[in-house]
Amino acid sequence: MDWNQTHHYTTRARYADTDPMGVVYHGRYLEWFEAARTEMLRDHGLPYKDLENQGFSLPVIKVCCRYHKPVRYDDQAVIQTLLTELNPLKLKLEYRLFVKGDPSLRVEAATWHCFVNSQGRPVRAPKAIHHFFTQLVKT
Amino acid sequence: MDWNQTHHYTTRARYADTDPMGVVYHGRYLEWFEAARTEMLRDHGLPYKDLENQGFSLPVIKVCCRYHKPVRYDDQAVIQTLLTELNPLKLKLEYRLFVKGDPSLRVEAATWHCFVNSQGRPVRAPKAIHHFFTQLVKT
Amino acid sequence: MDWNQTHHYTTRARYADTDPMGVVYHGRYLEWFEAARTEMLRDHGLPYKDLENQGFSLPVIKVCCRYHKPVRYDDQAVIQTLLTELNPLKLKLEYRLFVKGDPSLRVEAATWHCFVNSQGRPVRAPKAIHHFFTQLVKT
Amino acid sequence: MDWNQTHHYTTRARYADTDPMGVVYHGRYLEWFEAARTEMLRDHGLPYKDLENQGFSLPVIKVCCRYHKPVRYDDQAVIQTLLTELNPLKLKLEYRLFVKGDPSLRVEAATWHCFVNSQGRPVRAPKAIHHFFTQLVKT
Repeated sequence: MDWNQTHHYTTRARYADTDPMGVVYHGRYLEWFEAARTEMLRDHGLPYKDLENQGFSLPVIKVCCRYHKPVRYDDQAVIQTLLTELNPLKLKLEYRLFVKGDPSLRVEAATWHCFVNSQGRPVRAPKAIHHFFTQLVKT
Repeated sequence: MDWNQTHHYTTRARYADTDPMGVVYHGRYLEWFEAARTEMLRDHGLPYKDLENQGFSLPVIKVCCRYHKPVRYDDQAVIQTLLTELNPLKLKLEYRLFVKGDPSLRVEAATWHCFVNSQGRPVRAPKAIHHFFTQLVKT
Repeated sequence: MDWNQTHHYTTRARYADTDPMGVVYHGRYLEWFEAARTEMLRDHGLPYKDLENQGFSLPVIKVCCRYHKPVRYDDQAVIQTLLTELNPLKLKLEYRLFVKGDPSLRVEAATWHCFVNSQGRPVRAPKAIHHFFTQLVKT
Repeated sequence: MDWNQTHHYTTRARYADTDPMGVVYHGRYLEWFEAARTEMLRDHGLPYKDLENQGFSLPVIKVCCRYHKPVRYDDQAVIQTLLTELNPLKLKLEYRLFVKGDPSLRVEAATWHCFVNSQGRPVRAPKAIHHFFTQLVKT
């Protein structure tokens, strides 16, 4: 896996994100990962909204997240996102989160998604969409 | 206004609700007020979801909130909700928030709502719905 | 494992919890699980805040969550919480989420926590605290 | 008031921000306004964190928000922030929110803050801090 060449999304920890320990609330990272994968798709030419307009969406069916080291208020978080698994029904994205200026891994996570149609039924991705994702897979 | 006889909604401050100062984040109260007015409507016999099923909704068009004293982690918050203004187009709800066991007012707020149809267009409330709300007005 | 005899926490899906698909946002469940484990501890006689006042906390070091079926706006969610693994350094909690009146499992999850002192350093739980948690373990 | 020359903060509406109507939840804007004022202070040379390190903070004591037109999923929101009132005890910030590419005002808001010391007591801002804010006032 080549994390360095992958998409980078940057955000900053706000009061709204942090808890009484002064660190980012563990559930908030999932919102940041949503933003990271959305921007990764946009940068590769397929905004998630366009996918929806074509009648498909990619709900999260599973998430795992390991918190190695906290992120504090006002820290600038950098999230790397990789598509690591793909078949016509499902895909898996992996995330690594760092704080700017510090090489230590803070959080790592993965989300699993399936393709569903506009009625919310699981479906096979159409060829064009599957092909788009094929190009993003890094192994 | 008779606050004591009005609807009471109780919730508790979680890590998810609080910020690095150990107090509830100012934006979170708006979620609590949503829960408070939803339960007030349900208790009076018109769940908000039924209103939606009849083709109407009541989006917030304005909110004002004054923070007198903080609410801390694990505090039990009690929210009183009153419908104080109503016409066929709009209504106003007022909220007072206390912490259980302490008579001092922590937060007071008001939300203004208009009636919209399922296309999101402002409309006059139908007679039956307007009548329902008329019974709730406390002045 | 005996889920039926375990702690039940009930909450309701609000507008604040749901996304444009009309279902609870996947990250929100983590806030509900926080509330569920907090109330489980309180019901067993050790409010989390007391643990903090004794100089200890239990940050989440890992979470996994599987979303089987969506929870919709105004659904009443019931969360069962079980302590399934414990040693003096760490513990694991498991959650099952249902919607009232429907036996189908909606979400299942686990959170892993370690004991840390007030400086945020991992520590062994003192005997009294470890003993308290021992009584809760269900296998 | 000259809004055009003021600070601009840009963000994008995520699933996490939006509700079943497909529009940004009314309480979420308060988080966006926090980010907007934080970046305004940083751009002018006083990160909020530095203010805290000097022993002061600026809690929100009041907020008012008017929602003129909804912001939808994936819309890019641009927030203008102005400091419009200041005395040694308090200040008022005003916000206007647009969607990129559309001149119509979506949301306007104001937040009122007081200076407090590290014990949370209201205090007069020290001369240097008051002077910094004086330079930002636009009337």
